[in-house]
Amino acid sequence: MKKIAFFPGDGIGPEISAAARAVLETVAELAAMPMQIEEGLVGGAALDAHDDPLPEASLQLAKTADAVLLGAVGGPQWDARPPAQRPEQGLLRLRKGLDLYANLRPAQIFPQLLAASPLRPELVQDVDILVVRELTGDIYFGQPRGIDVVDGKRRGFNTMVYDEGEIRRIAHIAFRAAQGRRRKVCSVDKANVLETTRLWREVVTEVAREYPDVALEHMYVDNAAMQLIRYPAQFDVLLTGNMFGDILSDEASQLTGSIGMLASASLGEGRGMYEPIHGSAPDIAGQDKANPLATILSVAMMLRHSLQQEEWADRIETAVNQVLDQGYRTADIASPGEAVIGTRSMGEAVVAAL
Amino acid sequence: MKKIAFFPGDGIGPEISAAARAVLETVAELAAMPMQIEEGLVGGAALDAHDDPLPEASLQLAKTADAVLLGAVGGPQWDARPPAQRPEQGLLRLRKGLDLYANLRPAQIFPQLLAASPLRPELVQDVDILVVRELTGDIYFGQPRGIDVVDGKRRGFNTMVYDEGEIRRIAHIAFRAAQGRRRKVCSVDKANVLETTRLWREVVTEVAREYPDVALEHMYVDNAAMQLIRYPAQFDVLLTGNMFGDILSDEASQLTGSIGMLASASLGEGRGMYEPIHGSAPDIAGQDKANPLATILSVAMMLRHSLQQEEWADRIETAVNQVLDQGYRTADIASPGEAVIGTRSMGEAVVAAL
Ligand SMILES: CC(C)[C@H](C(=O)O)[C@@H](O)C(=O)O
Ligand SMILES: CC(C)[C@H](C(=O)O)[C@@H](O)C(=O)O
Repeated sequence: MKKIAFFPGDGIGPEISAAARAVLETVAELAAMPMQIEEGLVGGAALDAHDDPLPEASLQLAKTADAVLLGAVGGPQWDARPPAQRPEQGLLRLRKGLDLYANLRPAQIFPQLLAASPLRPELVQDVDILVVRELTGDIYFGQPRGIDVVDGKRRGFNTMVYDEGEIRRIAHIAFRAAQGRRRKVCSVDKANVLETTRLWREVVTEVAREYPDVALEHMYVDNAAMQLIRYPAQFDVLLTGNMFGDILSDEASQLTGSIGMLASASLGEGRGMYEPIHGSAPDIAGQDKANPLATILSVAMMLRHSLQQEEWADRIETAVNQVLDQGYRTADIASPGEAVIGTRSMGEAVVAAL
Repeated sequence: MKKIAFFPGDGIGPEISAAARAVLETVAELAAMPMQIEEGLVGGAALDAHDDPLPEASLQLAKTADAVLLGAVGGPQWDARPPAQRPEQGLLRLRKGLDLYANLRPAQIFPQLLAASPLRPELVQDVDILVVRELTGDIYFGQPRGIDVVDGKRRGFNTMVYDEGEIRRIAHIAFRAAQGRRRKVCSVDKANVLETTRLWREVVTEVAREYPDVALEHMYVDNAAMQLIRYPAQFDVLLTGNMFGDILSDEASQLTGSIGMLASASLGEGRGMYEPIHGSAPDIAGQDKANPLATILSVAMMLRHSLQQEEWADRIETAVNQVLDQGYRTADIASPGEAVIGTRSMGEAVVAAL
């Protein structure tokens, strides 16, 4: 019996995750896989109910599950709160609490949606990037941090920090992923200025020796931000830290024009967490407008990485391609003039295709 | 008598800055502006000659000048050295030594070069962004920093830090610049995670009250990296810190497809420094292939911001547009099939147009 922790979250989270849940339940039935889905609260929903973005019960639920499916968290109603009392903190504590140090974010082009990319089609048609982002270290979690007053002036400070163990384990994830792909790793740092990333470069170079079949390149983060636009097809696996990865993975996914289509997996030594890479889109929440495909494709990643159901992962991906081929479009991926369907209908179309 | 400190630097630096120097000398002559150009060493050139990327004589030269013109620094031959012994360190120490806390980087579209942008033309045709990047603080200069060993493991660490005074002065620069433009400032931070940038957001909001005619918006850095691609015309002045500014300004300039065309000014309370935003391009150094227009346009910024010659700044910009209209192209901005000219000829064409 597999146990799935299910966190719908805020904004469009409940709608998109309901569609994804239906897909997961369909697969469980078709595959005769005994499964139990348990719902919990995280983010703004948890703040409203328990004044805590990650109640202990939610963390325990996640820790005892085989995998976690998450919708999205956050919204303007919680924006004025101090960081520790914000929805995002629930997400960060969940990542840290489950030791999900490896965030995999594929940025790939769906040929049916080429026209939705802001880039010229000839530049994006071959784009297939896997961003491997470190997720439990760096300036996100470094101590000391805070705001104090020095000589009567407020001063804010944070600490970027990585030790070689943290760098080594995420580097292994990237090299192993590259072995199943085009065998290239581009490691992104700012080694010309930041000592932390000079160590990053050294350790990644050491790990690379164990993978002689994979080509390693190093790139400065400012150059990477340019190269992603100039010639994105040059990248296979893009390996980087938590902060740079936050920026570059969002940039990479926007390139494809299909951010509503992109899934993510956050992995550690144990269970994994799966979520769309887009946010909670409060402006369209509750209107049956959101695209559920990123969350549905996150279910495919869950089947592949946590539930040993590679074949059903493939089938979901095929079903998604099929509904695109059939011309089904939510508003975010429709070209001018194309007919638009809602969140629920899109989910049902995928279930039907399965 | 105006004194200009002239640092050609490394790679293509000497070629592009020679072309820009000729433009500056032409203007000085036509404008009957007494001027003296004194050359100094910085970056790799200074390392080779004096084992120091910024010899004391170079810093003194810059400090006693009315303005500084810089080509570009860096190259693979110095890459293996520790950060303190690298060309980039010369640049960072020059910025800090002259207290050049405000880096202005216009990312604008040259209509003649629309086809060179990686983005669809309808998305970029109206792009005119001024990135205002803080240049002497943040994780670039924060202490403590380094690599140590804890429990037998190497550990790298850096400190992100801003005090309210540093934030306030750069915010004023951004709001004042916006008043002369479309009256919008977008301030970029990661206030949902980093305390340093929570203070940033607070102080920028305070400063905004003094500019009721300018609209202020806040954006998270990951979202900004996306929005720059999705809909770049939404931005007028983009205000951010040193690290995020390094990444976003390079991304913004790549959007235009004309990175060989983009100038920058680094300003403080005293003299300013002017340089192209592109790098030293060691791969084409010494081949008369580089585009000198970014450095020539940096001379225009120098005339405007440091030498009170607004009219001559305009004339250089007009001359550059004129040579583009006439069809002159260096390799980086030529469309397939277009005739290509070299660095020297491009510089001469601008001088002729003046
Ligand atoms: C919501 C926020 C804390 C989070 C992050 O910065 O990691 C998000 O941007 C992401 O990338 O998942
Ligand atoms: C060369 C490097 C130190 C520098 C920086 O990071 O500031 C460069 O990328 C820039 O943006 O001027």
